[in-house]
Amino acid sequence: MPGPLEGVKVLSFALHLAGPFCTMLLCDLGAEVIKIEPPGKGDPARRNFPFIDGISSYFLSINRGQKSITLNLRDERARKAVFELVKKVDILVENFRPGVMERLGFSYEEVRKHNPKIIYASISGFGQKGPYKSKPAFDMIAQGMGGTTSITGEPGRPPVRVGFSIGDIGASLFAALAILAALHEREKSGRGQWIDVAMMDSQVALCENACVRYFATGEIPQPLGSRHPLMTPFQIFPTKDGYIVLITVPEEDWQKFCRLAGREDLLSDGRFQSHTDRIKNYQAFEPIMNELTKTKTTAEWLALLEPAGIMCGPVNNIAQVVNDPHILAREMIAEVEHPRVGKLRVTGTPMKFSRTPCKIEKACPDVGEHTMEILSGMLGMSREEAENLRKEETI
Amino acid sequence: MPGPLEGVKVLSFALHLAGPFCTMLLCDLGAEVIKIEPPGKGDPARRNFPFIDGISSYFLSINRGQKSITLNLRDERARKAVFELVKKVDILVENFRPGVMERLGFSYEEVRKHNPKIIYASISGFGQKGPYKSKPAFDMIAQGMGGTTSITGEPGRPPVRVGFSIGDIGASLFAALAILAALHEREKSGRGQWIDVAMMDSQVALCENACVRYFATGEIPQPLGSRHPLMTPFQIFPTKDGYIVLITVPEEDWQKFCRLAGREDLLSDGRFQSHTDRIKNYQAFEPIMNELTKTKTTAEWLALLEPAGIMCGPVNNIAQVVNDPHILAREMIAEVEHPRVGKLRVTGTPMKFSRTPCKIEKACPDVGEHTMEILSGMLGMSREEAENLRKEETI
Repeated sequence: MPGPLEGVKVLSFALHLAGPFCTMLLCDLGAEVIKIEPPGKGDPARRNFPFIDGISSYFLSINRGQKSITLNLRDERARKAVFELVKKVDILVENFRPGVMERLGFSYEEVRKHNPKIIYASISGFGQKGPYKSKPAFDMIAQGMGGTTSITGEPGRPPVRVGFSIGDIGASLFAALAILAALHEREKSGRGQWIDVAMMDSQVALCENACVRYFATGEIPQPLGSRHPLMTPFQIFPTKDGYIVLITVPEEDWQKFCRLAGREDLLSDGRFQSHTDRIKNYQAFEPIMNELTKTKTTAEWLALLEPAGIMCGPVNNIAQVVNDPHILAREMIAEVEHPRVGKLRVTGTPMKFSRTPCKIEKACPDVGEHTMEILSGMLGMSREEAENLRKEETI
Repeated sequence: MPGPLEGVKVLSFALHLAGPFCTMLLCDLGAEVIKIEPPGKGDPARRNFPFIDGISSYFLSINRGQKSITLNLRDERARKAVFELVKKVDILVENFRPGVMERLGFSYEEVRKHNPKIIYASISGFGQKGPYKSKPAFDMIAQGMGGTTSITGEPGRPPVRVGFSIGDIGASLFAALAILAALHEREKSGRGQWIDVAMMDSQVALCENACVRYFATGEIPQPLGSRHPLMTPFQIFPTKDGYIVLITVPEEDWQKFCRLAGREDLLSDGRFQSHTDRIKNYQAFEPIMNELTKTKTTAEWLALLEPAGIMCGPVNNIAQVVNDPHILAREMIAEVEHPRVGKLRVTGTPMKFSRTPCKIEKACPDVGEHTMEILSGMLGMSREEAENLRKEETI
């Protein structure tokens, strides 16, 4: 069975991360993604280390399964080829800074003339409108300006980055969702549209809970280490050999925990009766908990607490995650086949369908690997004509 | 113009966060979401503080615009009403622990008998299959077990939580995307399917870059404070009055920065020539930079660096974010109308459509606010019959 987006065609001008992660999602779902790259070196992300047999692992991960065509977008014949491709696709994705597509001659207004049904998605740091629209942005700018780092980190210490590039991939996820919503709408209206997703906006949307807490109380949310802002314990504690996540949301679970840990004395301590009490008296609570949890290994705590139905889990590092039996059973590690290098490992997709499963099988393309296939197969260009373009470095 | 999912109907069994954030995305996009709640107290998230005039801001934020019907799912007549609703909707979303929907009599197998076209989405901690499937999970369990906290935090210090509940809302985003992909596929096949999205899987997918770095090098990725793992400077530095994000990806930008900062001596320092050098010699690099960036305020740095085209930005707290002129111009703060309480602020949606814009206008429903509307309007139940159900606490 093919994936749910089988038959959907995407033309991608996406480079770096925010655009390619979006087209990766569509590709994982079964869409055919044709990625336009500058002739020669291709997407700058191809130069991001570390490399596996000359292939950037960074590039591989987010460009698996996509097709690559090289086009010098400043050349008139290449521009003509772009418009021919535009006529044959459902979706266009680009993540240049606002204004670049217009200068290249591929604004939404221009592109829709060639295909009024096209869904044209622009992903950028600050969006197509608004006072900051021309400001450049990579991931950390969005994380910093969008509020994310202000609530991530330890209390009283410097702001911390989310360990993955949520500044980019937050926007990628919202853009992919918006694209599929527009695709649904097009089934009825027969019309395309322009989607504008900003990285900074996406951080604000992800910070929704911190924002409404601020609206409700006027207090500016602060970083809390691993603590949850509304409940305690709902966090990471140190153990004899690592860390454990411990969560006792119903008060019965807190009581159960204290009994199992041999600390029934805490149950009669007025400072720790409820979540509200424990948050209020957190300065006193934390050292007591840290000392207690350090008395056993993570495995010992899990063996004690799990059977009692107390919510807990290990804190896994990346090596533990990618070798975890559950993650392997869930097919969350995929092997893709590269024609030159052989099998390479990437993460799988969390989108599991009963009838039309996603398949992650192909590695990333070499620069321009599919240029001839697309020019001749899709656009009907003669081999001679294509060879001429190659000689003149148009492709 | 209505949103792109106008006309799409969603039946939601979703409680807490992972499910409701998913149905919120669909609702923001224009779908009609009917949320089933237990009679009386409703969704436990309604009790999460802080409150605004008795309304949980936590609940408000993710349930805005949805409709609430109360049904005691253990009552046979309520179960009949569920199956009547199932026949009238396109999508069902639930986030119980695996097995609960089956025990209630609403497994996918049972539900599809009443509507073979239904797209049935299950969001859970560990998914419907695999060794951990029956394990309970809240946000921090997924963040901890899925690898996220192991790469978030400061080097050599305890793991840190992502400041928003990415353990939940990561899964919500993937689930919403999978639902719309299945909706697209249904247009052609006429058939529904079962979607299984796990919170832990979703963290692994978000950690893709850390995973492939590990596959490429065998080194376990570590938390790096606010640093990017592949480039330096690409991080937050302290200023005289706060923090600034500073990014110099092309080496020319690093040279420009040193000149503007009056530290051309750094350009001839062999330890700091390239990103690779600066990462290798980071122990020496960081204190020099911290001392340098502290010599000016954030505003002074921005005034110096922005005009030179160096990528930089302030590190905003939540109060600054929600009052930022760009965020306001982007309509990222929405006012919703609550019939009893009046206007309330929530975050907007980053999904901006040129032709079918999303509208965020309505607050969250009261428990069972739409029970009568749905039972009589949608299912054609008489007022008398409905009143009987109410008396018997079935609704």
